[in-house]
Amino acid sequence: MILLDRKEYLKNPVEHMKIDGTLTIDGLMQQFKNSGSFGAGRLAAACDIYEKMLRDKECTIFLALSGAVIPAGMRTLVADLVRSNLVDVIVSTGASMVHDAIEALGGHHYKGNWTVDDRELYKYHIFRIYDVLVPEEDYVKLDYKLAEVFSEIADEKKGALLSSRELARELGKRLKDKNSILRAAYEENVPIFMPAVRDSEFGFVHWLHASQANRENVLNLDAFKEVPEICGICSDSPRNGMIVIGGGVPRNTIQSATLASKKGLDYAIVLTMDRPETGGLSGSTLSETVSWGKVKSQADNVMVIGDALMIFPIMVGSVIERLGNKFKRTPYLRHAHQQNLREK
Amino acid sequence: MILLDRKEYLKNPVEHMKIDGTLTIDGLMQQFKNSGSFGAGRLAAACDIYEKMLRDKECTIFLALSGAVIPAGMRTLVADLVRSNLVDVIVSTGASMVHDAIEALGGHHYKGNWTVDDRELYKYHIFRIYDVLVPEEDYVKLDYKLAEVFSEIADEKKGALLSSRELARELGKRLKDKNSILRAAYEENVPIFMPAVRDSEFGFVHWLHASQANRENVLNLDAFKEVPEICGICSDSPRNGMIVIGGGVPRNTIQSATLASKKGLDYAIVLTMDRPETGGLSGSTLSETVSWGKVKSQADNVMVIGDALMIFPIMVGSVIERLGNKFKRTPYLRHAHQQNLREK
Amino acid sequence: MILLDRKEYLKNPVEHMKIDGTLTIDGLMQQFKNSGSFGAGRLAAACDIYEKMLRDKECTIFLALSGAVIPAGMRTLVADLVRSNLVDVIVSTGASMVHDAIEALGGHHYKGNWTVDDRELYKYHIFRIYDVLVPEEDYVKLDYKLAEVFSEIADEKKGALLSSRELARELGKRLKDKNSILRAAYEENVPIFMPAVRDSEFGFVHWLHASQANRENVLNLDAFKEVPEICGICSDSPRNGMIVIGGGVPRNTIQSATLASKKGLDYAIVLTMDRPETGGLSGSTLSETVSWGKVKSQADNVMVIGDALMIFPIMVGSVIERLGNKFKRTPYLRHAHQQNLREK
Amino acid sequence: MILLDRKEYLKNPVEHMKIDGTLTIDGLMQQFKNSGSFGAGRLAAACDIYEKMLRDKECTIFLALSGAVIPAGMRTLVADLVRSNLVDVIVSTGASMVHDAIEALGGHHYKGNWTVDDRELYKYHIFRIYDVLVPEEDYVKLDYKLAEVFSEIADEKKGALLSSRELARELGKRLKDKNSILRAAYEENVPIFMPAVRDSEFGFVHWLHASQANRENVLNLDAFKEVPEICGICSDSPRNGMIVIGGGVPRNTIQSATLASKKGLDYAIVLTMDRPETGGLSGSTLSETVSWGKVKSQADNVMVIGDALMIFPIMVGSVIERLGNKFKRTPYLRHAHQQNLREK
Repeated sequence: MILLDRKEYLKNPVEHMKIDGTLTIDGLMQQFKNSGSFGAGRLAAACDIYEKMLRDKECTIFLALSGAVIPAGMRTLVADLVRSNLVDVIVSTGASMVHDAIEALGGHHYKGNWTVDDRELYKYHIFRIYDVLVPEEDYVKLDYKLAEVFSEIADEKKGALLSSRELARELGKRLKDKNSILRAAYEENVPIFMPAVRDSEFGFVHWLHASQANRENVLNLDAFKEVPEICGICSDSPRNGMIVIGGGVPRNTIQSATLASKKGLDYAIVLTMDRPETGGLSGSTLSETVSWGKVKSQADNVMVIGDALMIFPIMVGSVIERLGNKFKRTPYLRHAHQQNLREK
Repeated sequence: MILLDRKEYLKNPVEHMKIDGTLTIDGLMQQFKNSGSFGAGRLAAACDIYEKMLRDKECTIFLALSGAVIPAGMRTLVADLVRSNLVDVIVSTGASMVHDAIEALGGHHYKGNWTVDDRELYKYHIFRIYDVLVPEEDYVKLDYKLAEVFSEIADEKKGALLSSRELARELGKRLKDKNSILRAAYEENVPIFMPAVRDSEFGFVHWLHASQANRENVLNLDAFKEVPEICGICSDSPRNGMIVIGGGVPRNTIQSATLASKKGLDYAIVLTMDRPETGGLSGSTLSETVSWGKVKSQADNVMVIGDALMIFPIMVGSVIERLGNKFKRTPYLRHAHQQNLREK
Repeated sequence: MILLDRKEYLKNPVEHMKIDGTLTIDGLMQQFKNSGSFGAGRLAAACDIYEKMLRDKECTIFLALSGAVIPAGMRTLVADLVRSNLVDVIVSTGASMVHDAIEALGGHHYKGNWTVDDRELYKYHIFRIYDVLVPEEDYVKLDYKLAEVFSEIADEKKGALLSSRELARELGKRLKDKNSILRAAYEENVPIFMPAVRDSEFGFVHWLHASQANRENVLNLDAFKEVPEICGICSDSPRNGMIVIGGGVPRNTIQSATLASKKGLDYAIVLTMDRPETGGLSGSTLSETVSWGKVKSQADNVMVIGDALMIFPIMVGSVIERLGNKFKRTPYLRHAHQQNLREK
Repeated sequence: MILLDRKEYLKNPVEHMKIDGTLTIDGLMQQFKNSGSFGAGRLAAACDIYEKMLRDKECTIFLALSGAVIPAGMRTLVADLVRSNLVDVIVSTGASMVHDAIEALGGHHYKGNWTVDDRELYKYHIFRIYDVLVPEEDYVKLDYKLAEVFSEIADEKKGALLSSRELARELGKRLKDKNSILRAAYEENVPIFMPAVRDSEFGFVHWLHASQANRENVLNLDAFKEVPEICGICSDSPRNGMIVIGGGVPRNTIQSATLASKKGLDYAIVLTMDRPETGGLSGSTLSETVSWGKVKSQADNVMVIGDALMIFPIMVGSVIERLGNKFKRTPYLRHAHQQNLREK
């Protein structure tokens, strides 16, 4: 808590926005920065922090994906961030990578409505994710196709224990869709961790694969193998930054890695609708994480309270605009650490 | 609830956003429209509805202002909407008009932080509104200046009972700041209703004014006088639309007026963080309002869940951009009804 | 912010609850007090503060009512609090007093469901308040009956300007239902303020009354008259306490009165689901109010985050139990100030 | 959506609560049942559903634990539910079982405050979980002690791949504290699944264990092994019920198991503060799960919106009271399925 002189508190008057019909996204964001308060002020701060992360040549950027990222239409956006080196490490729920794979295999998510009759959808074999719909057949197709892929990997690995990162990499290697996050990450050597991978369709795909008659090799996923992998990335980076879409296990995994590696985050952006008072991790304040050493006390950090699926594209749009076409970023660990992570 | 054929549910695949560094606000909104889901989808729908309201030549547009609209930097934005005839009627808390008057009299809101020590602020006579600060002297200056204005109005009206709309108009007449909402509304003949005006600094200004020694005339505000005024506007409009920032009394007042006038809203946009389950009006669904007849069952309507102080400028920016420079709107009731409301 | 020695932080271990089948409400609350954290800890603190208010012989207790208090089944509960002298002043939305009057006139609220078809309800002339239903005829009956009452009051008052408190008192005098809050308050001389009374069915009742042919006297409600009334109560009380159900105008009115009377609250309990980040008053923290002087920096205060309509009865149940049968409370201002407020 | 005759909608008037000083928890809940609306109505419905689950002799009851269950003081409560056979299967975050183990090893959680200075806590090596504090030394002690336990298990298992359920069982076998959830579950043969176990202190304990010099055997955790285990439980149960504290991975795991086993839940209670609109799983409606077949369309189900750490003890208190002392429950699968799960 900073104690100031009275006049220090009253230094920056709120400037009132002037919205005309010609503003770009970053033009709007500059207005938000001058007004500076409530959600708009937080969003402007988030854009500044992401820009700062990207311009810091010694910072590794972790992106936490939870919630309905792909059904929200952000698949190409995330893949593009990976391909442009604007994100270095992804920590995701299993579900988001399942959704990515569904689309890579020709499936789709469909625009729907949250007031439909779910009993009717059930009869139609259509699954609902709030206002997005997925036909069951897309899941079934995924299950069978991926079970084959799992078997192929198992035969190749012959009983070796994989981490979720290695599984994601093997999947990316076999998906051909250039808009796929898994594919883009494979091509760019961006590690994708799925700490709760078992809690997704991948769990059932595995079961399908493992229960095949006469299967000699079974794909074995070591739950703990990735722990030193992600901690190593934090350790090897002079500085670390985190952007969280939602919260949950992906947020916790990144924060814990920065704690275990005794680094602490230098930059942290959390976009969430969850609230802190009930003690859940997703809504916990970034101040709280300072007590643990997960976020450094002097870190640039902000939580934007709202729907991350609306806020993240705005933030990215603003930052890409200000970086401009000529901006090129070389991830600090690309040549160092990731070489070691690359499959031998 | 609409029952569809299976294939009807699966007609519109979510299209994935493509964010480059050149998007305008409406360019982003078109992306949101194609992705179409969650907060982004709702926001895109809100923009479409506001555009539709504006292009409907027989629709009167009500804007409900609650929460910290002026401290959030939206004062000029609202004044500009009034001056551009993009809003026809304002229903506001007293506080927002107090904040408007404070700035018209040379006061300011200041960018602050929500983690400051409130006991220190108290000692410094600085008031906090989340992350915005106001020095007490700006309120004091307002009190004395406005008490004089109240006395001036009282002397002019000689005991006549005013409605809150008439009070707002008298205030606007006396404020010279062109960025003032009260002033813009006065010049454009846009009525401003303040149904809970007593619950604001105006209440204490009145007390100050009324307790002056030897005061012959006291400004008398009739709590109920404005009821037929606002209902009359609804009645006289072929169609009515509502945009709500926040909720509370301003939202309820508009909805009740459309009910009492037996019109029902044809368009409704609510931007709020409140939730429906506890039964409060601010978070109640627009579906619920259909049972009352406040919103028509076939109305275009959407609630966007989030911080209205961030969402409203985005929505306005998108809609102004698509309307273009040449768009001119003539409010339906400008020549009809508002002539009658104009002070004789 | 208090700075402590390390061991001071680690003084009180969380004690784990032991729930058997014989706990009374206060028995559970003692468990919550020992565990002491998150929502349960806040609720236990709220009970302690309400108890403290009641045992403080020089404290006036303000109850703010917003949201669907009567539809939630809390009508008798509030009336009983009034009759037992466990609440001294009520500040309410107009709606809650409308709901009270509807039931006093034989109407009912009905248990419903939030997933019904609102278009069907509209056809049936049934109004929905989340999961509660009200038949339109109960409102119509209210309108006509109350319009008569308004006319009766107007004839009696012959043009005198009433405050909302005086209107509430006149209504209570004429309602005979002993479970009515308005009636109980009338009998016990508990003032009920309705600062936004115009924003309720009372506004339309007034219109009905005022538009009657050949009406000589019209009931005139002075919007500002109650300001010095409520401030006077604060001034005259050595200490003041506030319990808020929900927030909105009722909360703001109480807080502003304690500010304007230069007293500041000594006790404050807010039960709400609203959140602070968007800058609205309902969700604002009690810490923020300290900067204004609305709540004293050393006041006992707590916000319980949740559905007030569930939490308030639990809190009252716990506190009544610990007070016991023999507890009698004499409101400090009963003989002093309220005598003056009593109609002459 | 049910279509009713008009009078069917208006059948059950809200009965107003009567709170005296003698109510037991279930006495209060009966009041909530009669009033029947908003949060109180939902909580009363949750109690009824839990009671129904318990009285259904062919139902297996899954409890999902997420959030700060142990810091909230609910450790003994959950252990008692396990020992009383009022819960059959637990699906938990890793963190809750870490917290359980910390206390079993003599550590504590401490009552704190959410307004402390986190930078000071950091210097003091005290970790904050909202308003609960834990000294770092309790974590360190846990790490070293558990690393030994992991080594002991590894030596015993000699490279065999364990599921998280088997790990939980091995831990419970070695903890001696009777108030430990892990211990109670071990003694009562209640399986505990930790689908995201890697995302907790256990992940770092494993690293510590695995990196010991000259370690011959390493404890290997198979991420996918538990999938058929939990699905088997669902399959073998004539009916399945779910109680969710919070949401997240534990909720998703149970729901997915009922889907994969083609059973669907017959009873579902979710206690959460999360909201549905942003598309996250934790806040998703139970109606949505019907489209997937996770919850049956005719299932008894309710979501209670609020702090689960306050609501769960109230619900349990009410249900235990109504069951009475003599109630004995024999889990359906105790003799059937769990025999097979028992370690050979």
